[in-house]
Amino acid sequence: MHTLTREDCIQRDTADRLAGLRSQFELPDGTIYLDGNSLGVLPRATPDRVQAVIRQEWGQDLIQSWNKAGWITQPQRVGDKIGRLIGAGPGQVVATDSTSLNLYKVLSVALALVRARDPKRTVIVSERENFPTDLYIAESLARQHGFTLRLVEHDGIDATLDDTLAVLMLTQVNYRTGRQHDLRRITAAAHAAGALTVWDLAHSAGAVPLALEADDADFAVGCGYKYLNGGPGAPAFAWVHPRVAAQLDADAAWQPLAGWMGHAAPFAFTTDYRPAGGITRFLSGTPSAIALSALECGVDTVLAAEPHGGMAALREKSLALTDLFLDLVQSRCAGHGLTVQTPLAHAERGSQVSLLRDEGAYAIVQALIARGVVGDFRDPGILRFGFTPLYVRFVDVWDAVEHLVQVLERQEWRDERFHQKAAVT
Amino acid sequence: MHTLTREDCIQRDTADRLAGLRSQFELPDGTIYLDGNSLGVLPRATPDRVQAVIRQEWGQDLIQSWNKAGWITQPQRVGDKIGRLIGAGPGQVVATDSTSLNLYKVLSVALALVRARDPKRTVIVSERENFPTDLYIAESLARQHGFTLRLVEHDGIDATLDDTLAVLMLTQVNYRTGRQHDLRRITAAAHAAGALTVWDLAHSAGAVPLALEADDADFAVGCGYKYLNGGPGAPAFAWVHPRVAAQLDADAAWQPLAGWMGHAAPFAFTTDYRPAGGITRFLSGTPSAIALSALECGVDTVLAAEPHGGMAALREKSLALTDLFLDLVQSRCAGHGLTVQTPLAHAERGSQVSLLRDEGAYAIVQALIARGVVGDFRDPGILRFGFTPLYVRFVDVWDAVEHLVQVLERQEWRDERFHQKAAVT
Repeated sequence: MHTLTREDCIQRDTADRLAGLRSQFELPDGTIYLDGNSLGVLPRATPDRVQAVIRQEWGQDLIQSWNKAGWITQPQRVGDKIGRLIGAGPGQVVATDSTSLNLYKVLSVALALVRARDPKRTVIVSERENFPTDLYIAESLARQHGFTLRLVEHDGIDATLDDTLAVLMLTQVNYRTGRQHDLRRITAAAHAAGALTVWDLAHSAGAVPLALEADDADFAVGCGYKYLNGGPGAPAFAWVHPRVAAQLDADAAWQPLAGWMGHAAPFAFTTDYRPAGGITRFLSGTPSAIALSALECGVDTVLAAEPHGGMAALREKSLALTDLFLDLVQSRCAGHGLTVQTPLAHAERGSQVSLLRDEGAYAIVQALIARGVVGDFRDPGILRFGFTPLYVRFVDVWDAVEHLVQVLERQEWRDERFHQKAAVT
Repeated sequence: MHTLTREDCIQRDTADRLAGLRSQFELPDGTIYLDGNSLGVLPRATPDRVQAVIRQEWGQDLIQSWNKAGWITQPQRVGDKIGRLIGAGPGQVVATDSTSLNLYKVLSVALALVRARDPKRTVIVSERENFPTDLYIAESLARQHGFTLRLVEHDGIDATLDDTLAVLMLTQVNYRTGRQHDLRRITAAAHAAGALTVWDLAHSAGAVPLALEADDADFAVGCGYKYLNGGPGAPAFAWVHPRVAAQLDADAAWQPLAGWMGHAAPFAFTTDYRPAGGITRFLSGTPSAIALSALECGVDTVLAAEPHGGMAALREKSLALTDLFLDLVQSRCAGHGLTVQTPLAHAERGSQVSLLRDEGAYAIVQALIARGVVGDFRDPGILRFGFTPLYVRFVDVWDAVEHLVQVLERQEWRDERFHQKAAVT
């Protein structure tokens, strides 16, 4: 049997039809960046685009740019682009605010829809392992409106689909383990049980192919600064299925954060709120024009894969990268106490690999960073590595594992300096 | 009696101790910008600072910048700077989200505080002429939590201060008329009536001196993209009085948009929400690092007045500018059907002047813009002119009125092209 070599990885990069997409990014020299699941890298187009927005659109054209540069429709325009990555049609997505805030909006509306037709449904179900901000937002709404937030394990979800369930709120790809839910199957099961679904796509959008509309999901939100490369704290997005949007229009339904940009006629300056139709009602305040411009550049880097097979091709490469990483860790790091937290089955895997180690996980991550291999750490003892097919190469995977082997074999992580925790991990 | 001349205005600029502050800004050639009350102009420092954040902090340092560049504490750091402009101490302000969203947070908390001690107080009072997004947010909270939103005229506020009043929610300087409330007096009256106050400082922060803490206000929010020059859709801010913050801490009170950045230990990733102390609980999602950097540059332009007398000196010049404008309009535009909507009394005036004209107001504003004098229009028939003492000169006021005289005398505004309304006005 042929043992894989670094040369083999280089050849896979040479043969990779997506390899050219890497040139879209500014990558720091000497860094293997495996943290695009936390903060995507800088697109080359972003600095100049943001400069143009600042110097020309703001500096020279000033308030005219709300019309002339289309600042006022940026949330919808960028939203439409995100829609192409998640299986949503034009007019279904807005880019705005943060994931937390968008979740507050859509979960509120989902709860109100269910309550209106069946007040006995009082339970929100989510996963205990869901990203905490989602749980906090759900808990806040549960407290305010008399719902109960019930947290279960990944494999306990199906058992909760009963006639008390109002909304099933899940993150499709888990931030810690990289485990992926079958959005289509779970949505169908939730619907069969009479409930609605809210999906957080923070670790999915731009990472795994999605078909939100075809899969008949109800609501979704997601993050702009991970696989969409929108920059630190970039605006997030919100989506509702057109079937749901039609219902909201028919009901003239409000979302709670009923700011002026979600009004049917914001520049009529009326005293009474009247929600805009469709997804626009999910806007609140004035669009953040600079941040949205940066986000648009990031989304464009993912859309650039469209001529090369789009999200399906990115997914294929992502799986090849994570397969390679898993294989190499298994063959080269055996005996070092690492266990794989990410499912081996492709259908259950996102675009990251998480390894668990009882001792020294945080310090191992720091030692890798000192060597230029950037992953991150999550309690308890998880080393997280994101593989963004837009800019991670097969040879990067090889080299990352080589560094990991050395950190482990030389016990570099025992160095005291790798044990000091920063505020943000 | 000496009649004022353009030369007199130039001499006033020469004598102006704040004149040098204008060099902080990139102003488009040939433009007299009287719309800083809508969108502040571009500080010269902003493009380079944003480039550094994008190219170095994001592009090169990536996730390290959450710690190394202090991204994670930006909301508090920029908030502290804003605090210096509004009479609030360190740790009392966060810069985050939009005015609408911050209002949702603080008004929710204000209502909950009052309800806890007196459930019979079920009325939110505001002004019919308040900026609409404030009314929409209040209406949303009233609907959700069983309060009544009562709208009154400016002069009807005192009559509403009774034992049904929960929260008095006012914008200190009216966006349309430029009329200013006496924050200290009204707050005291509201407190005497057993209610709490929520102040929107969108047209106050950076425009008029404020002493929020000394004046014993309860809650405030404000806008980053007007007089704070933070850029289009810049993050807004929220403030609570330390007396209120202490109460919130004692109650472990939640604000409804309970995202992870408002958690006491966000990076502990616990399933349960536990609010951070003080103002930090009013954070929700991940800080928008690029937008906050631009906002910080803007706030710095106002802080640059501190060695020259600070907000008091800016206020003095602002009043001199609006006095001059009012005098010149009165003397030179008589007979053209303009009436002044802004109070003549200094204590009741913000940093803008609004003129009403029954016919052609929108077109007059457009004709002025075509001549390089940028103000804006608000229904019904209001021409709005903002005077930002950081960059508006006395000679600009003279020239603006000269253009207005010509637009009126030559009836330029009757030209058809000035009557076409854009989406954003």
